[in-house]
Amino acid sequence: MGAADSLDALLARVKFGADGLVPAVAQQHDTGEVLMLAWMSAESLRATLSSRRVTYWSRSRKSLWRKGDTSGHEQHLVDLRLDCDGDAILLLVDQAGPACHLERRSCFFTALRDGAAVDVPDAEAVPTGARGRT
Amino acid sequence: MGAADSLDALLARVKFGADGLVPAVAQQHDTGEVLMLAWMSAESLRATLSSRRVTYWSRSRKSLWRKGDTSGHEQHLVDLRLDCDGDAILLLVDQAGPACHLERRSCFFTALRDGAAVDVPDAEAVPTGARGRT
Repeated sequence: MGAADSLDALLARVKFGADGLVPAVAQQHDTGEVLMLAWMSAESLRATLSSRRVTYWSRSRKSLWRKGDTSGHEQHLVDLRLDCDGDAILLLVDQAGPACHLERRSCFFTALRDGAAVDVPDAEAVPTGARGRT
Repeated sequence: MGAADSLDALLARVKFGADGLVPAVAQQHDTGEVLMLAWMSAESLRATLSSRRVTYWSRSRKSLWRKGDTSGHEQHLVDLRLDCDGDAILLLVDQAGPACHLERRSCFFTALRDGAAVDVPDAEAVPTGARGRT
């Protein structure tokens, strides 16, 4: 089967929300860092699978957003996973540089510690079981 | 500062959607497995932080859903992260048994391979850099 078949097989299972979007989580395939959560439309899924360059739907700009086109911090698709309910996507990617527009490796760098919201080092985005191993 | 301060510090930064919910991604803290994506209300965040038992908002049942109460597959909160835009949460958890209601470790077990949607083994939920290391 070809790429078109792949896409049909996937799109047939995806339950897009009323806004036509589904949440997508990007994870660095080897280190396991959860890099970001963004949104995908059917069109952005098509673009991602055909180009292997992760392409989201920007809810603020209301347009396709191919990650890295402006920042240079591209996300290359390694594997795509759909969840059991078909309403969330996990993107296993190879992220060039920081995924966050604030130049942090992961967007999830604010933790709740000792009663305050604090920023944690990029190293804490790597699961303890993978630290120092990749 | 106490728990109440922690909660205020967090809730002040969280941008809930029009439906009063924010997407939350659960990741096993050591292996790095992305287990599931669900939704949290301010009330479920309060319950999660006060009990350290991850508690979501069930959009289908329209009620609080403390993970594991019926299945026994509890999620214990290890760390909570908020993303740079304040509109997504990453929960680092210790997951007892399978996170998925289909008895799979992760809900994200369907991959797109060779033109078809196929289920992958639980072992593939572990990032390559952490496999066999935890």
